[in-house]
Amino acid sequence: MADFTLKCFVESGNAYKAALMLQLCEASWEAEWVDFFNGATRQDAYREENVMGEVPVLVDHTQNDLTLSQSGAILLHLSDRFGKFVPDNRSDELEMMRWMFFDNHKLTSYVATYRFMSKFMKKEGEPETEFLKARAMGALKVLETHLSTHDWAAAGQATLADISMCGYLFWPDHFGVTWDDYPAINAWLKRIQELPHWASPEALLPASA
Amino acid sequence: MADFTLKCFVESGNAYKAALMLQLCEASWEAEWVDFFNGATRQDAYREENVMGEVPVLVDHTQNDLTLSQSGAILLHLSDRFGKFVPDNRSDELEMMRWMFFDNHKLTSYVATYRFMSKFMKKEGEPETEFLKARAMGALKVLETHLSTHDWAAAGQATLADISMCGYLFWPDHFGVTWDDYPAINAWLKRIQELPHWASPEALLPASA
Repeated sequence: MADFTLKCFVESGNAYKAALMLQLCEASWEAEWVDFFNGATRQDAYREENVMGEVPVLVDHTQNDLTLSQSGAILLHLSDRFGKFVPDNRSDELEMMRWMFFDNHKLTSYVATYRFMSKFMKKEGEPETEFLKARAMGALKVLETHLSTHDWAAAGQATLADISMCGYLFWPDHFGVTWDDYPAINAWLKRIQELPHWASPEALLPASA
Repeated sequence: MADFTLKCFVESGNAYKAALMLQLCEASWEAEWVDFFNGATRQDAYREENVMGEVPVLVDHTQNDLTLSQSGAILLHLSDRFGKFVPDNRSDELEMMRWMFFDNHKLTSYVATYRFMSKFMKKEGEPETEFLKARAMGALKVLETHLSTHDWAAAGQATLADISMCGYLFWPDHFGVTWDDYPAINAWLKRIQELPHWASPEALLPASA
């Protein structure tokens, strides 16, 4: 049996954050596909395990099946387990946390939701989709500005903040941007792809049936 | 001089999270009002200090003016400084973090933005506002379900997760709910109000001119 089970599906960039961390840490893990688009996360049994009703969920079989949701909490747990991707001084760690919160609050929050509404719900151009798009582009602009003077989000090294923020960003065509227009993000994504053992979402996560 | 300066304004529930933590820890702090509604956070000088362009910003004068944004990172720093509101075992701490990420990702993210669009931008009923409202109500339902079997968000005690999630919730009329319809949230907010030194947003934060 693998050490970890990740409940996931390939379209979820939040699941990819956890899968990428597992991959970069060379963890023993297996994917359990969740049929999100047919409502699996809205079922009672799923909600009983995870009241937030989200993907991903990580189960750590080496720690009495400790079960976690929220990609940020999962990343923190995996960094505890593998001792990787967290800087060793607290002020750098706080800067890392600041970008992880920014990711959840502004970047993934809007990029993922805009992508969902435009690509999967086919609501491009509708007012709610345009609202999300404007917020998503604002968050990308903040990230571009920051990365224009920083190789990594925090601490001058790859950390959980980078793994978190890149979750949806290998799919620029899914939210209508080209990284040619964001040279600092483009260069940073290439640095991430050069990390040992990096793999794409499609290589790590199970596709829908 | 106070130990901390908090850049803030009374309408910001994210600023309130930081102010409430300072208050509950009996910190020496002063508020510096930010003229958000006249665009202060969009000015170059503000963006140079905080590329994310947000309120709150905390400056810790006891640590070489360490400057932090993102309420979650600020709360973590203050818990380091005061040794309060973080559970003493890591699995409880991860559960706390899980709810802090949920707050940033889903609860405050949608409740605050819905409130902003309906109350301050006067766009109640418009499609983007209705979209945000539905997401906000979904997040409140998750919180209600969780608190119906838990006195506190995590660890059986008041933690940063409670301080984070209550940020906008003392203004239910600002987003069109009554806590009579959410008995578990109602009881939990009363528990928070009973914490020693609790004070309301209006008591802690500077009003707009």
